[in-house]
Amino acid sequence: MIVLIQSIDRVGLVAGISAIMAKERLNIVSLREFVDKTDNRFYIRIEAEKDTDILALETAIRQVLPPEAYVSINPRPEKKIVVMVTKEYHCLADILVRNQFNTLGASIQCVIGNHQVLQNICERFAIPFHYISHEQDSKAVFEEKMEKVIEGYNPDYIVLAKFMRVLSPAFVAKYPERIINIHHSFLPAFAGGHPYKQAFERGVKLIGATSHFVTNELDEGPIIAQQVIPVNHSFTTADMIRAGKEIEVSVLAKALSLVFSDRVFVYRNKTVVFE
Amino acid sequence: MIVLIQSIDRVGLVAGISAIMAKERLNIVSLREFVDKTDNRFYIRIEAEKDTDILALETAIRQVLPPEAYVSINPRPEKKIVVMVTKEYHCLADILVRNQFNTLGASIQCVIGNHQVLQNICERFAIPFHYISHEQDSKAVFEEKMEKVIEGYNPDYIVLAKFMRVLSPAFVAKYPERIINIHHSFLPAFAGGHPYKQAFERGVKLIGATSHFVTNELDEGPIIAQQVIPVNHSFTTADMIRAGKEIEVSVLAKALSLVFSDRVFVYRNKTVVFE
Amino acid sequence: MIVLIQSIDRVGLVAGISAIMAKERLNIVSLREFVDKTDNRFYIRIEAEKDTDILALETAIRQVLPPEAYVSINPRPEKKIVVMVTKEYHCLADILVRNQFNTLGASIQCVIGNHQVLQNICERFAIPFHYISHEQDSKAVFEEKMEKVIEGYNPDYIVLAKFMRVLSPAFVAKYPERIINIHHSFLPAFAGGHPYKQAFERGVKLIGATSHFVTNELDEGPIIAQQVIPVNHSFTTADMIRAGKEIEVSVLAKALSLVFSDRVFVYRNKTVVFE
Amino acid sequence: MIVLIQSIDRVGLVAGISAIMAKERLNIVSLREFVDKTDNRFYIRIEAEKDTDILALETAIRQVLPPEAYVSINPRPEKKIVVMVTKEYHCLADILVRNQFNTLGASIQCVIGNHQVLQNICERFAIPFHYISHEQDSKAVFEEKMEKVIEGYNPDYIVLAKFMRVLSPAFVAKYPERIINIHHSFLPAFAGGHPYKQAFERGVKLIGATSHFVTNELDEGPIIAQQVIPVNHSFTTADMIRAGKEIEVSVLAKALSLVFSDRVFVYRNKTVVFE
Repeated sequence: MIVLIQSIDRVGLVAGISAIMAKERLNIVSLREFVDKTDNRFYIRIEAEKDTDILALETAIRQVLPPEAYVSINPRPEKKIVVMVTKEYHCLADILVRNQFNTLGASIQCVIGNHQVLQNICERFAIPFHYISHEQDSKAVFEEKMEKVIEGYNPDYIVLAKFMRVLSPAFVAKYPERIINIHHSFLPAFAGGHPYKQAFERGVKLIGATSHFVTNELDEGPIIAQQVIPVNHSFTTADMIRAGKEIEVSVLAKALSLVFSDRVFVYRNKTVVFE
Repeated sequence: MIVLIQSIDRVGLVAGISAIMAKERLNIVSLREFVDKTDNRFYIRIEAEKDTDILALETAIRQVLPPEAYVSINPRPEKKIVVMVTKEYHCLADILVRNQFNTLGASIQCVIGNHQVLQNICERFAIPFHYISHEQDSKAVFEEKMEKVIEGYNPDYIVLAKFMRVLSPAFVAKYPERIINIHHSFLPAFAGGHPYKQAFERGVKLIGATSHFVTNELDEGPIIAQQVIPVNHSFTTADMIRAGKEIEVSVLAKALSLVFSDRVFVYRNKTVVFE
Repeated sequence: MIVLIQSIDRVGLVAGISAIMAKERLNIVSLREFVDKTDNRFYIRIEAEKDTDILALETAIRQVLPPEAYVSINPRPEKKIVVMVTKEYHCLADILVRNQFNTLGASIQCVIGNHQVLQNICERFAIPFHYISHEQDSKAVFEEKMEKVIEGYNPDYIVLAKFMRVLSPAFVAKYPERIINIHHSFLPAFAGGHPYKQAFERGVKLIGATSHFVTNELDEGPIIAQQVIPVNHSFTTADMIRAGKEIEVSVLAKALSLVFSDRVFVYRNKTVVFE
Repeated sequence: MIVLIQSIDRVGLVAGISAIMAKERLNIVSLREFVDKTDNRFYIRIEAEKDTDILALETAIRQVLPPEAYVSINPRPEKKIVVMVTKEYHCLADILVRNQFNTLGASIQCVIGNHQVLQNICERFAIPFHYISHEQDSKAVFEEKMEKVIEGYNPDYIVLAKFMRVLSPAFVAKYPERIINIHHSFLPAFAGGHPYKQAFERGVKLIGATSHFVTNELDEGPIIAQQVIPVNHSFTTADMIRAGKEIEVSVLAKALSLVFSDRVFVYRNKTVVFE
């Protein structure tokens, strides 16, 4: 079983938690604990061999923790997700394939697209595709339509797999720490709309991609994973976009794998990742 | 303070150890625990904020552990090392520089060379250099002379920074899990004497280096760190050797940093590295 | 247009070739030339802006080259390929997706499987799947059946995307430098059947994958691309296999991209890659 | 011999240049040519086996080139350099060691420091150290003193190995494309003074370093090389600085190796690197 706890730090938390687990004869096979001294914040992830009664365990553990503690025991092993896309196929296709072969660590409930071009690939994998255009409606109405679809599926996470519309604070606030984005640059370099054009003009030798949770600050949410890929003088902007897509697929896959295996804590604008 | 424990696994070890630490009001700021199920082996590394009486703590902790347990509390923060070399300067110079600026995490007691070419660089850093030739003497006598020098310094570790003689089982047995080597290949590929020539002839696209503890099996000791560097068709064997040296410096520095910060456990032919 | 030439080296080859191109008013926008002194072998890859009459150009260029020279002008821009698989989906799915979105640089004619499990994913992408079992027939008959299918499609390359049968010298000889394999290890380490089990037992810190042309020497053909991925003590053999699959997909995609963009020369057991 | 040419592009340049070399019986063993279509700019680097009369060759080659062409034949194989530093030792020490063992591809003439702390390490390698403080004097006077020292050595390049003062446009203008800097961030992210503090607060998962030629735009000169190193939540700002130093050493070494082996062209704010 897996136990995840985040709380204010104080002496004795590990002892308190592990004593309860030992009493239940739960053998701890992997434990990561970290205290962020800047925030006085305690994070722990425990893997134990056997299972036990979850509710009783949580009740017992909460008694040794500060009241505000976040506790999650045996989170749903296969997350339910909704994927949102625009026109680019590369991240979506990678997720669809992993979903098809049960290696995503999550189950795609549906895909929402603000364009129709990716409907076909979803149909090939028998995944429901909801086309919701942003063109006729106000942003409020557009987002309301998406929310209605999302609520029908009750997902754990929303994955923005190259969804190219900026979401409103109101929308984001409905899914705190539950929206995962792939950003087409090595944040904070080249934040904003045309990172590859900027990268080309600057003559950089590496381009990167960043997967992060979405918050109200555009391109400023807690970073989950980042990777880079080498480029050189011979790369046109189009070549950089092509290389960028390869690394975007890789970074998003990595970030989702970490989140879906319950290895990522979020606090304020940062993550703690027990990889 | 730092607590390192390795033992047979059983239920309740984390609880037992952390209860003792909590009783001493030691706040655990970083904890890594891992159980190797193949060997039923328990490994833990704990960083706590304050210090306490070490002997009392060890005595208390041992009471909750299996008798054969390995326990190390606050290992010497700055390790004492002896460096052994032959003719190549690159790894030695990197270690000498870090030693000079107190960023090695260890203190070089002396350098032993079976050739004299590296005496000059040692003198520049005022590090004693002992020239012990392997040429006139039998291996037994050669190693005996080295042992005598080594014993005079009582080092925690012996670092083979491109020492190109094979050490006898008798010598190795005197320093179990205390001799660290840098091997000029991505083990287990190209084990043996001329890895770069082999790599050139095979037309590989990556070459690597491996840092490992030395055991009696040549090039077979527990691996601490490995890295690779890209090569291509335009590399001659000499170019590969040059590229290899860059990666050798980097891998050895990484391995030493891990060992000197007490992050590496050894058991049989493997390491557990809490990076 | 693209010009590829490989021949015995001699003074004046670049001058001879480029003079003919200049006479045709072909502006060279990218040129890579390399002479392998060990083999006295000349390799050149030229990209020019315009096109011209190909046959006339080849005739003119051949007059300045040694008679045995290999010359290829404007090779088919979209290669035709046949993919051979066994049971593992990961490399095949990546190729199918790229094929679907016209970013593979090749066009998949069909997939041949010696098991049926991957028929479904092929059908989702409307790619013909030929199930040819190796079980009832002798290897000679098994391969004959595959050849018959392959010949029907006249492919430029055969891609072994985790095809787990060893091909006979007779089969390989029919497609010299045209069969591309992905090998589940960082060759030459762990050649043979169970690389991840070997890697686990050795306790390595990196695992790799190798894409190479297939020759009669098992796992010994000319290497096109190699990559590695970090692993650690917490990886079981199954975890290593999982990580290995990620890197296999990546290396095969890289190798195919290089081959399909006409950047790879083969000579004896090595490649020259103008990346 | 090595031939480097940069000019406006037009049809026939390769043919013109290579014909002259063939006439001299110079066998071209490695050639890289690239045309930047955005700028209509031609770059070529040729390695030939033998040598010939350089002046005669340059005269002949210039006749087939546009008048503004940059031509460099057999540039000084071992560059003369002046190194400028402030207080941090890591990049300087790496350069001093390579210089000592003749593997830098350049010869250090002297080190200029605006603090005295690095005088000792220079003396260990018998390299002249000039202490020029920026504290009492105006920037103009400070830079004048440095120029006077520099002029005494007539260096090919000035290497800023963690020199922490911003140089004036007047100073920079005296050494166009000859001042090489190592910047402590992955430009353009975190340009300016405290990149690691910014990186810590942003919670990035990679930090990088950039080596570039210095121009009047602060941190905006043509980039030669960039690399990154992974970090995580457990890194304090001090840990990031430490990791950053490792990657700074590596990037600067890489950039210097490229420049000193005559593989880097500069045009406007970009480089062409024939690696």
